[in-house]
Amino acid sequence: MPRSNSFSTNMRIRFPVLAICLQVIIIILFGIFVRYTPVDRWTQPSTNMGLYPIFQDVHVMIFIGFGFLMTFLKKYGFSSVSINFLIAALGLQWGILLQGFWHMVSNNVHNTIESMINADFSTAAVLISFGAILGKTSPVQMLILTIFEITIFVCNEHLVVNVLKATDTGASMTIHAFGAYFGLAVARLLYRPGLKNGHPKEGSVYHSDLFAMIGTLFLWLFWPSFNSAIAKSAEEQQRAIMNTYFSLAACTVTTFAFSILVEHRGKLDMVHIQNATLAGGVAVGSCADLDILPVGALLIGSIAGIISVLGYKYLSPLLATLKIQDTCGVHNLHGLPGLLGGIASIIAAAVQVNSNISVGMQAAALGCSVAIAMVGGAFTGQ
Amino acid sequence: MPRSNSFSTNMRIRFPVLAICLQVIIIILFGIFVRYTPVDRWTQPSTNMGLYPIFQDVHVMIFIGFGFLMTFLKKYGFSSVSINFLIAALGLQWGILLQGFWHMVSNNVHNTIESMINADFSTAAVLISFGAILGKTSPVQMLILTIFEITIFVCNEHLVVNVLKATDTGASMTIHAFGAYFGLAVARLLYRPGLKNGHPKEGSVYHSDLFAMIGTLFLWLFWPSFNSAIAKSAEEQQRAIMNTYFSLAACTVTTFAFSILVEHRGKLDMVHIQNATLAGGVAVGSCADLDILPVGALLIGSIAGIISVLGYKYLSPLLATLKIQDTCGVHNLHGLPGLLGGIASIIAAAVQVNSNISVGMQAAALGCSVAIAMVGGAFTGQ
Amino acid sequence: MPRSNSFSTNMRIRFPVLAICLQVIIIILFGIFVRYTPVDRWTQPSTNMGLYPIFQDVHVMIFIGFGFLMTFLKKYGFSSVSINFLIAALGLQWGILLQGFWHMVSNNVHNTIESMINADFSTAAVLISFGAILGKTSPVQMLILTIFEITIFVCNEHLVVNVLKATDTGASMTIHAFGAYFGLAVARLLYRPGLKNGHPKEGSVYHSDLFAMIGTLFLWLFWPSFNSAIAKSAEEQQRAIMNTYFSLAACTVTTFAFSILVEHRGKLDMVHIQNATLAGGVAVGSCADLDILPVGALLIGSIAGIISVLGYKYLSPLLATLKIQDTCGVHNLHGLPGLLGGIASIIAAAVQVNSNISVGMQAAALGCSVAIAMVGGAFTGQ
Repeated sequence: MPRSNSFSTNMRIRFPVLAICLQVIIIILFGIFVRYTPVDRWTQPSTNMGLYPIFQDVHVMIFIGFGFLMTFLKKYGFSSVSINFLIAALGLQWGILLQGFWHMVSNNVHNTIESMINADFSTAAVLISFGAILGKTSPVQMLILTIFEITIFVCNEHLVVNVLKATDTGASMTIHAFGAYFGLAVARLLYRPGLKNGHPKEGSVYHSDLFAMIGTLFLWLFWPSFNSAIAKSAEEQQRAIMNTYFSLAACTVTTFAFSILVEHRGKLDMVHIQNATLAGGVAVGSCADLDILPVGALLIGSIAGIISVLGYKYLSPLLATLKIQDTCGVHNLHGLPGLLGGIASIIAAAVQVNSNISVGMQAAALGCSVAIAMVGGAFTGQ
Repeated sequence: MPRSNSFSTNMRIRFPVLAICLQVIIIILFGIFVRYTPVDRWTQPSTNMGLYPIFQDVHVMIFIGFGFLMTFLKKYGFSSVSINFLIAALGLQWGILLQGFWHMVSNNVHNTIESMINADFSTAAVLISFGAILGKTSPVQMLILTIFEITIFVCNEHLVVNVLKATDTGASMTIHAFGAYFGLAVARLLYRPGLKNGHPKEGSVYHSDLFAMIGTLFLWLFWPSFNSAIAKSAEEQQRAIMNTYFSLAACTVTTFAFSILVEHRGKLDMVHIQNATLAGGVAVGSCADLDILPVGALLIGSIAGIISVLGYKYLSPLLATLKIQDTCGVHNLHGLPGLLGGIASIIAAAVQVNSNISVGMQAAALGCSVAIAMVGGAFTGQ
Repeated sequence: MPRSNSFSTNMRIRFPVLAICLQVIIIILFGIFVRYTPVDRWTQPSTNMGLYPIFQDVHVMIFIGFGFLMTFLKKYGFSSVSINFLIAALGLQWGILLQGFWHMVSNNVHNTIESMINADFSTAAVLISFGAILGKTSPVQMLILTIFEITIFVCNEHLVVNVLKATDTGASMTIHAFGAYFGLAVARLLYRPGLKNGHPKEGSVYHSDLFAMIGTLFLWLFWPSFNSAIAKSAEEQQRAIMNTYFSLAACTVTTFAFSILVEHRGKLDMVHIQNATLAGGVAVGSCADLDILPVGALLIGSIAGIISVLGYKYLSPLLATLKIQDTCGVHNLHGLPGLLGGIASIIAAAVQVNSNISVGMQAAALGCSVAIAMVGGAFTGQ
């Protein structure tokens, strides 16, 4: 939905009709299923107002963070923020429904602050995928992708959390790796030779970079809330906050250092600063609430910054030759650090930081998140 | 206070003298009346630190949200944010005093977190009116309007809440409809034929649109806090949060759909995205804490998005022919959705969602908010 | 680290090597010393999740507030935000370690939400100094300055709070005056005649001013959280919130009034609006939690706005003739209002608003903060 032209006559009818139909379907399903949580169930922590500030932090990440992070492209600034806004607003309603279907109480979906956080989370996966295909799809395709991806996302999450009983509090695997590989599979299928040398509207301008930093910083600042939002106990919640805070700080220092090391033109690469500094938040996700010690968080963050910068420098050109054009580099920000997060959780299980997690289940969770994402993305991209 | 020229010699003396006089008067009145709440009264919920994060959300809406929403005009960006800042900083002090006068304890105004929220609310009414007259007034006129409008606002609010005992938790009527019709009345009186074809500085540029989206998104994100801030019980607070979250999400989808339907040029109208997406927050306000079911919130939001887009498309040109030039389109964002909110609360009373509210009192509240706003605006605009 | 050129070949090796070495040292020290707080110590308020929203407000101030405040310079926008980001991410890790060393429990540093707030605070001092020397230093020098200044900052803070037992809840003296005079001492030593007439990249452009307002407003909005974050009781915390809210509101009104009074060109000076409006937050800091009455806060704020505007107008040109070129005017925003805050706390002690504070200790705290800052800055600037 680029600002300057965009809707063909055909699209000008199809887009509103599809959007209105989806909204009507959602209204009907909400009418049948969704209810407020009865007050007598308010002793559960998930109904606690204490979660509300954390919900708001996550909310800012989804709409301001993801939205502005994508404004760095010269001509896509406004349309990135707008489509991000539309996808998230539609997606969270669909997320409330689908996630609720797994936890129905006498055929009702009981809405809580926690289910609003989970709905926002489900849109995050779509927004990550959106970063890989920005500029390649029509708004109608984005609406369809939103509905499909959230449906598959919710099933994968159920599999990982409730069937495999793996730990993934900060969602390195279920959101970040899932969203990235889903998006890359779609991007591969949408590949057209004419786009090979980059879309003419790619490339950043000075002010775009400052707008993108608004996105980067709000994501960076509120990531501790993201990774701790669904932690089970106060102890785990505090550990998730601290580990994420430390991981991001270390990641930022190594990102600056390696960005200058690998750049031959002798200047900071703004794409690294805007993106790789966040890899520490992604990578510490799966282990965020575990007792990995503050030094463990620093190590994960340091490594995440390094691999993300190296990914932008060396891996993205390689992927492009494989006809996978990753517009925003989500593979380097969400894909690789998501894998690192999964591997870190396998190591944490191996060294027995917590007796409730097992090497096998963590590995299975990582594998099925990536596999389901790729298959799902390929299916949706058709 | 446009950036490029602005203060005539006369104004350069009158503005500082008036501002300093007002500040001195406020200091004297604070010295006589305003006190901290004694610690032994801290068992009331209004003194609870739990309200502080909600206060901060509202605070961000007033200064960042309203401020940046008005930056879309090409040449008014900086002066909009600045005057918004000045009006709010002056207005909140005046609001603390006037709202306190209705609740004095042994001739003292006891300040609480809740009274800070209410003071911020009272400035919101002025900032809405400011949107209707942006570019038509001098800074001196804005200072006078701030003092007058807050005074009238506080009286109307007292009438609606304490005399009529109507419900208006999210203030669709007392803030949004009031602020809009107050501003439109002032705009009508400030009409000069020379301005008929639009101020030459109107019209947006590309970067302005991204700055305006910062305003839009922070308003959108924190609106659940706005609508739930003064809810009486935890149950009503959670319902207000959820209803506003759902209403805004649905409103965003219908805004995108109808914006493209009514635009013949085949592109997204940025004014719709920046403004009409927020109409769901306005319209659900009066009913926000009532048991309207999540589906009720979706319906209110969906309708609000539609009428707001249609208002921008068809009603604004009509108002302009009536010599009412609504610079930021506040009638479409706050006026019409405010009326819708009032009507929704009348319907909610009619179907008896809550035995404490009555059709008559809700209708009276809506009528007197609009009438007092128009008369007050006409009086102030003289 | 200007965007357009910057890293000499030499620097391209030295910067990454130094950054990586510092990060490795921090990882080793964290491994030896830093631990999560044991759960059985979680009855202390400092481990309370209630502090978390306040921590997040402070966090936004450090990274968004300070970062964007410095974007007003035409060509330094992106590099200001980036270097601010790097300094803060490195500084907070160093701050956790050094502040922890004063409070070790059986040779461990126990990390809490409160120690994360204090770590963010320690970076604030460095970021204030950075404002005085922006454009005069290399990134390598900034890394060294960060390590040195935080070390000296932590010692001075320990002296003021634990040895002198002075009150400085909002840190007018220990952060603002300290950071400003430290930076000015460094700026004096970095003075080169060639820079006399201002760096060619100084001077603002239109969009820069709107970006800078993002910084200003987030600092302004969350300053009540900054000044109340380490208050000891709920009563003191609420007073700190209210006093800061009132002081900032009054300061904003007097800043607008005096800015127009002293400007002969007849327009608002954007530097005043972006900076002097914040002086009220600085100046009320030392007294923030004391029972100075709301009117006391209004008075402090009103005076702070006036002296800050006068400082920008008359004192900055004077300092420049003394070969102190204060790039962002931190002397007017943090230096003078910091002194005012210290003096206000001496007066508060003199009129006995609280029997625990003494005139002598407050004066000693102010004196040693300024003196240690100047000596430390001169030493570091060598």
